[in-house]
Amino acid sequence: MAETETSTSKEEDHTSKDENKFNDSNDVVTPWNVTSISSEGVDYNKLIDHFGSEKIKPELLERVEKLTGKPPHRFLRRGIFFSHRDMNSILNDFENKKPFFLYTGRGPSSEAMHLGHLIPFIFTKYLQDAFDVPLVIQLTDDEKFLWKDLTVEKANEFAYENAKDIIALGFDVNKTFIFSDIDYIGSSTAFYQNMIKIQKCVTFNQVKGIFGFNDSDSIGKISFPAIQAAPSFSNSFPDIFGSRSDIHCLIPCAIDQDPYFRMTRDVAPRLGYPKPALLHSQFFPALQGAQTKMSASDPNSSIFLTDEAEDIETKINKYAYSGGGITVEEHRKKGGNCDVDIPFQYLKFFFEDDQKLDEIKESYNSGKLLTGELKKILIDILKPMVRSHRERRAAITEKEVKQFMTPRKLAFDY
Amino acid sequence: MAETETSTSKEEDHTSKDENKFNDSNDVVTPWNVTSISSEGVDYNKLIDHFGSEKIKPELLERVEKLTGKPPHRFLRRGIFFSHRDMNSILNDFENKKPFFLYTGRGPSSEAMHLGHLIPFIFTKYLQDAFDVPLVIQLTDDEKFLWKDLTVEKANEFAYENAKDIIALGFDVNKTFIFSDIDYIGSSTAFYQNMIKIQKCVTFNQVKGIFGFNDSDSIGKISFPAIQAAPSFSNSFPDIFGSRSDIHCLIPCAIDQDPYFRMTRDVAPRLGYPKPALLHSQFFPALQGAQTKMSASDPNSSIFLTDEAEDIETKINKYAYSGGGITVEEHRKKGGNCDVDIPFQYLKFFFEDDQKLDEIKESYNSGKLLTGELKKILIDILKPMVRSHRERRAAITEKEVKQFMTPRKLAFDY
Repeated sequence: MAETETSTSKEEDHTSKDENKFNDSNDVVTPWNVTSISSEGVDYNKLIDHFGSEKIKPELLERVEKLTGKPPHRFLRRGIFFSHRDMNSILNDFENKKPFFLYTGRGPSSEAMHLGHLIPFIFTKYLQDAFDVPLVIQLTDDEKFLWKDLTVEKANEFAYENAKDIIALGFDVNKTFIFSDIDYIGSSTAFYQNMIKIQKCVTFNQVKGIFGFNDSDSIGKISFPAIQAAPSFSNSFPDIFGSRSDIHCLIPCAIDQDPYFRMTRDVAPRLGYPKPALLHSQFFPALQGAQTKMSASDPNSSIFLTDEAEDIETKINKYAYSGGGITVEEHRKKGGNCDVDIPFQYLKFFFEDDQKLDEIKESYNSGKLLTGELKKILIDILKPMVRSHRERRAAITEKEVKQFMTPRKLAFDY
Repeated sequence: MAETETSTSKEEDHTSKDENKFNDSNDVVTPWNVTSISSEGVDYNKLIDHFGSEKIKPELLERVEKLTGKPPHRFLRRGIFFSHRDMNSILNDFENKKPFFLYTGRGPSSEAMHLGHLIPFIFTKYLQDAFDVPLVIQLTDDEKFLWKDLTVEKANEFAYENAKDIIALGFDVNKTFIFSDIDYIGSSTAFYQNMIKIQKCVTFNQVKGIFGFNDSDSIGKISFPAIQAAPSFSNSFPDIFGSRSDIHCLIPCAIDQDPYFRMTRDVAPRLGYPKPALLHSQFFPALQGAQTKMSASDPNSSIFLTDEAEDIETKINKYAYSGGGITVEEHRKKGGNCDVDIPFQYLKFFFEDDQKLDEIKESYNSGKLLTGELKKILIDILKPMVRSHRERRAAITEKEVKQFMTPRKLAFDY
């Protein structure tokens, strides 16, 4: 088969074990587990070295700004999306008017989503608006069925519930296809063909190395990575892209998902497909601190999109790890530490104004701004944000959900 | 989940390794390899012991005759279908007017099929006629893509070519659904749901034990057994059976396929589905002798359905292993040995008249009938049989193929 390899990044060979698991003495980062012993969280520079990705540098941001005519999203400006693979190749395409598409996803493990789940979607919405490109969103209900104590029906139901939260972020229905694996795989010969093409290229040895599977894992888990890989290839979506397999894919995701796409990038040239490009985000920290990410399985670690105003206030005040002094006196004297302070970290994600955020940081670090005051700034942002999300979500009709989730032509020509 | 286990056979536990591979000093029997050091072929009684199935006894044949009002098929009368699982439970169902369905299949590894490939289908046609039940036929083009050096397109094309040979055997279009995995899985959410349900129940350890997979096998191969298992469950075919998952399945197949269905029978009660029943056939021997089965990958071992009259004559005369004496004198004196004689073995499969077959056997064993004469009897049967098969096949229209291969309601009510 002809290779349509267009990657411009350094040579990659992901068969070596070193980069397949990130598990040094301080940090563990896998698709199923993120922990760090540091209160500042995972060492992301080390992660770039281990995974073999590239750091997002100011030149890349300048190029994005120039090409899109808009300032880069705050997640880019603040290094929340901090690492990439082949982003320059995507920007070259864009400059040369060659189309690309966006792919992101979510594992619907529960009905309620939390703030951390929104990060890739908020960023994907920005990318879709800035570059005006089609977007596919995979809901891996099959994965959640395989991994969790869930029925097929329940996992599928969660996929539809989560779709509403995603739609509520304002995606353009004419440019966005959202799908549940359970429903789409059973309705797309093209997708299934790519699944088995990928599965033929990947051995158990490889998924053992990349994902840490062992002999006691189910054959469903073992073959699942091919299902998360398949949407990276445009011909998995004939309704959108016809039979074209050469349209480049850009995947915004948290960096713990990178193992799936390292595998995908290894397989792509063997199938004659372009390698997907990636933009990696940092993790959204748990209320208790950056040692771990926000997790739906620990309700006290998370602010859910279903939380009421008073829940949010209580959770921030009660659980959010503070980088402030133990007493007001101590705080005034020694100042706070924004690098470990969870309310400040959350503001980095959600507070738009760069200058004011700098002022808050300075004020808190100097001891002028107190912990309670900092928490209040965050609460005053989150309360209306979550409420208006819930209002937008409640207004979504079943018909709209169905429209987003029906395989169909999008408002692009290929 | 409620168990609808209705098996009446002895308790089974297939986790022990002994029965998972049949590989004693004389015989090897796996889905990918059948060899014996004996010129009489595999020791089928030993196989029954190893696999833990049950021997088909005269009482079972009498029951079949009584219930169907027809003499049992020659494959049953002659012990070619020699082993079963739960066949009495199927006959109980039939007696009580409870519906069951037939499932068989084929891996479309090449365009041309050979005589050996017809055996399960000839027998399935008899069962369909005798019991008047619906039938699903799986063409595992995905399997052949995963195992062989074949493209998806080629494997899928072979599936459609093979479907014509199967249809040519005279199946009733109103009672038969033939499907290619590549096409059907991508068009059936119900089938995909059963696939992942099965995959969740089976570990790599288990498929390693049952099928001999190892760490260098592709994740496609490793998860494939779930795909061959899924058609055993009636709710994989909602167009035929609606949402009913309790309809019993009877699988006629060569015994080398039993590992797939041992696995299926282990999984079934955990999913609340009935275990499929089985009827196992012996192998159709290669021209060179019963040490191995007829194989499409060795053209000289096989008589293809595309062979012309002269090819058949040449192959039988030149390659068919003879149990006769080396010289006519020796043959007259010592007699032949029908137990190892391939032309006689083929007559056992295709010569209908029991009495005449006995006479041939006696005459050959006594030395009266010569090897050339015996071969001529076989040639005179095979030549018109293969020619008329080819004529029937040539008359099949694309429309007919499409009709057989469209998921649809069959002429049964559930």
